[in-house]
Amino acid sequence: MPESAVRPQPDIALARRLFDALAMRTRSGRGIVRDSYGPGEQAAHDIAGTAAADLGLEIARYAAANLYMTLPGRDRTAPALIVGSHLDSVPQGGNYDGAAGVVAGLSAVAGLRQAGIVPACDVTVMAIRAEEAAWFDASYIGTHAAFGLLAPEVLDVPRSDNGRTLAEHMTEAGGDAAAVRRGIAHLSRERVRGFVELHIEQGPVLVGGGVPLGLVTGIRGCRRFRNARCHGAYAHSGAEPRAFRRDAVAATVALVHQLNEDWVRREAAGDDLTFTTGEFFTDRALHGPSKIAGETRFVLDFRSISDDVMLRMRDRAIALAREIEPRFRVRFELGTPIYSAPALLDPGVRARMKDHAAALGIPTIEMASGAGHDASVFANLGIPSAMLFIRNAHGSHNPDEAMDIDDFAAAVRVLTSYLAAETAS
Amino acid sequence: MPESAVRPQPDIALARRLFDALAMRTRSGRGIVRDSYGPGEQAAHDIAGTAAADLGLEIARYAAANLYMTLPGRDRTAPALIVGSHLDSVPQGGNYDGAAGVVAGLSAVAGLRQAGIVPACDVTVMAIRAEEAAWFDASYIGTHAAFGLLAPEVLDVPRSDNGRTLAEHMTEAGGDAAAVRRGIAHLSRERVRGFVELHIEQGPVLVGGGVPLGLVTGIRGCRRFRNARCHGAYAHSGAEPRAFRRDAVAATVALVHQLNEDWVRREAAGDDLTFTTGEFFTDRALHGPSKIAGETRFVLDFRSISDDVMLRMRDRAIALAREIEPRFRVRFELGTPIYSAPALLDPGVRARMKDHAAALGIPTIEMASGAGHDASVFANLGIPSAMLFIRNAHGSHNPDEAMDIDDFAAAVRVLTSYLAAETAS
Repeated sequence: MPESAVRPQPDIALARRLFDALAMRTRSGRGIVRDSYGPGEQAAHDIAGTAAADLGLEIARYAAANLYMTLPGRDRTAPALIVGSHLDSVPQGGNYDGAAGVVAGLSAVAGLRQAGIVPACDVTVMAIRAEEAAWFDASYIGTHAAFGLLAPEVLDVPRSDNGRTLAEHMTEAGGDAAAVRRGIAHLSRERVRGFVELHIEQGPVLVGGGVPLGLVTGIRGCRRFRNARCHGAYAHSGAEPRAFRRDAVAATVALVHQLNEDWVRREAAGDDLTFTTGEFFTDRALHGPSKIAGETRFVLDFRSISDDVMLRMRDRAIALAREIEPRFRVRFELGTPIYSAPALLDPGVRARMKDHAAALGIPTIEMASGAGHDASVFANLGIPSAMLFIRNAHGSHNPDEAMDIDDFAAAVRVLTSYLAAETAS
Repeated sequence: MPESAVRPQPDIALARRLFDALAMRTRSGRGIVRDSYGPGEQAAHDIAGTAAADLGLEIARYAAANLYMTLPGRDRTAPALIVGSHLDSVPQGGNYDGAAGVVAGLSAVAGLRQAGIVPACDVTVMAIRAEEAAWFDASYIGTHAAFGLLAPEVLDVPRSDNGRTLAEHMTEAGGDAAAVRRGIAHLSRERVRGFVELHIEQGPVLVGGGVPLGLVTGIRGCRRFRNARCHGAYAHSGAEPRAFRRDAVAATVALVHQLNEDWVRREAAGDDLTFTTGEFFTDRALHGPSKIAGETRFVLDFRSISDDVMLRMRDRAIALAREIEPRFRVRFELGTPIYSAPALLDPGVRARMKDHAAALGIPTIEMASGAGHDASVFANLGIPSAMLFIRNAHGSHNPDEAMDIDDFAAAVRVLTSYLAAETAS
C-alpha cells in the first residue's frame, strides 16, 4: 500500500444501516423487488440519496435519473473517479446484487470524508438505473443512457409486468425521456477518469476457494442462440424404424452432446468458455410418451472473455447442425445469435487493487465474471475500469444470496485505500 | 393356395359403402372422432351391426358391449374363428385405424356367404370396444373385458374429455359394468380357435418398401420410464464453472445420447428394438436463457418383440444414470417403468397366410408391429393369432391416414381365401 498521511477507514456501520433499510423497504414476500424505474428501485434511490445528503455530498440526477453523489475534488474540472453499481433487482431477487456496490461507494466516501481527505478530483458514487434485463428486456439501460448510447427503441419497450413503456417510467422517476431519446449524454470517456464496481460474486468460485475477494480480469461476453429449433416429424415411437425417423430430440441431443464435448476440449486447452443449454423442450401440445418428437426448442449460450472463442463456437454450432441434419433427416433453425461484447478490465488498476489488498492482508484471486455488469460498458468505451467480487453463497437473482458483512468490509477497505491513494494527487 | 371347390371373393363394394358411412357419421372437423363407449364409437357399431344384419349374421354383444357378428358354422359347439379389430379412434384420428379390420371381416364373411360356403366352425367378426388409451388411459378395454380380465379399477377411471367413468359409459352403451367388474367372461382360450386382425400399418415400412401387405411376426412390448426426472441445481450460465455445475440438461443429454448409441449397436447386432425420448423438457416456470437448468423431465421408451432385449435396456438405463450422476452432480429419478408384454404371433398361421398371398400373386414382407393391438391379448392367452398390415401413408392417429382401397382389397382377398381354407373342414 502506498504510504499516506491518513489511513481512512470505511464506515461499515453506515453500510449495515443502508442494507437494513433496503431490505425493509424493498422486500416483498420472501424476496427483494426493486423494479427498474419503478417504486422498488425508487425506494433504494431515496435511501441512498438521503444518506449522501447526510454526508454532505453533491447530488445530481440528469436525464436518465441515475443518482450521482459526489465528494468534490480539489480540481472540479478534472475527470471524475466513479464508484458505482445498480440499485434495481430482478423480481424476487436478493438484497445485495447491485446495491452492495452503491453501499460500498457511500461507505468508502464517508471514510474519506471522516478522515478529512479532499481528493484531487471529484469522487462520485453512482447509483445506476435499470441494469437488469428482467423488466424492459434490455440490460445497462441507465449506463447506456448516461453515455447517450441508449437505442431509442428501448424507450418504447413495455415493462414485462405492467405493459407501460420505459419512457413513461423514466419520466415518472424524474428523468427526461426525450433527452435520452436524442442521445444527450451526461458522461463521456473524457469526463471519467476511471470506474470501479464492487459486486457480489454470482457463482461459487470464492466460496469454493475459501477466498473473500475476487479481482475480475474481464467480463464474459455472450453469443446466444436464444430461440433455436429443430424441426423433425412426429411419428409412432414403436412403429417408425430408425432409418425413417426425423427425431428432433435425438438430433438436438446429438448437437448439445457434441458441443459439451467441444467445451471440455477447449477448456483443457486453456480457453475461457462456458456453454449452457438452459432451455430444452418438446411441444406440450403435440409431444407424447409414445411419439417421436417432431420439434424441439432450445438455447445455446456461449460465454467467454474472448470474442474469438465465442465466434469459433458459434461457427462450430452452425457447422455441426448442418452435419447432423441429414443424419437425422431434420432441419435446424438456430436463428441469429444475440451478442454482448466481452470486456477486458484494466490490468493496471487491477494490479494496484491487488497491492492494496495485499497490504491489508486480504487474500484475493483473479477470475473472470460470467455475468454481465455495468462496468463492461465503461470498459468498452476505453475508460480504465475495475471490478471487485465479494464472496457470496447461493448465487444471485434469488432471495438466498448470502454475503458475509465481514467480507463486504474487507472489500470496502480495499476500495477506500485505493480511492485515497489514487486521488492523493 | 389349397384347392377348393368355390373360390370366394370379398365384397369390396360393401367395404367402400361402410368406409363412406363411417367417415360421414364420425368425422368432426378435419379428423375422425369415435370416442370409446361414446356416441362416435356407437355410430360405428350401429353401421357395422346394420350391415351384419343385412348379411343375415347372428348378432350378440354381452357385458362389455363388444359386437359379435357370426356366420354360423356346421358345428356350433366348435371353437370359433374370430376376425376383428376395434371401432374406436383417438380424437382427430383417421378413418381406417381399427375400422379397417372390422370392415375387412364383414367383406370377407359376405364373400363366404355369397359363395354359399358354410364353414366348419362359427366365423365371428368382432367389433371391439375401447382399444385406444386416449379416452380412459388404458388400452384393450373391450378385449380384456371380453376375457373377464379387465382390472376392476379401470371401470372407475374418468374419461379424459368429460370426467365420467368407464362404468357409466359402458352402461349407457348397453353393457353390464357390474358383470365386467366381476370378471364374467364371454371369450376364453377354449372357445376361440384363432384370431386374425387386419390393420393399417402405422409406420412407413410398406410404403417405403413398395409392398402392399405385411405379415406381422410379433407385436412389440414396451418398457417405458414414463415420468423420468433429473434433479440438478439452477445457476447462472456464465458465472458457474463446469466443476461446480449440477446441469440437469447436460446430464440428461449424456444419458439419452448414450442410449441412442446403444440402440444403434444392438440393432447392428440383429436385436429388435426401438428407443425414443418423445418428451424432454425443462421447467417453463424456472428455466431461462441465461440459467443452468436445475431439472428436466423426460421419457425413455424401449420397445421390442423380445422381453429380454427390453430388460437389458431397462437395466442399462438404470446403470448409466448411476454412472452419470456423480459426473454431473445430479440425481436421476427414473421411476418404475410401465410394462406391456410383447406378443409373438403364430408362425404356422403366418406361413399359411403367406401361401395364400403368394397364390393370389400379392407380395408380402414379414415385419414386427411397433404399436400395440388387440391381437396381442389373444396371442398372450395362447390363442393362435395373426395380423396383416395394410400399406398406409402418414402413419395413424391423425386425419391424414392414406390407405389405398386396392391394397385393402388385396388384404381381404388373402383373408377370405384363408378363412375358406381354414374352415373347409
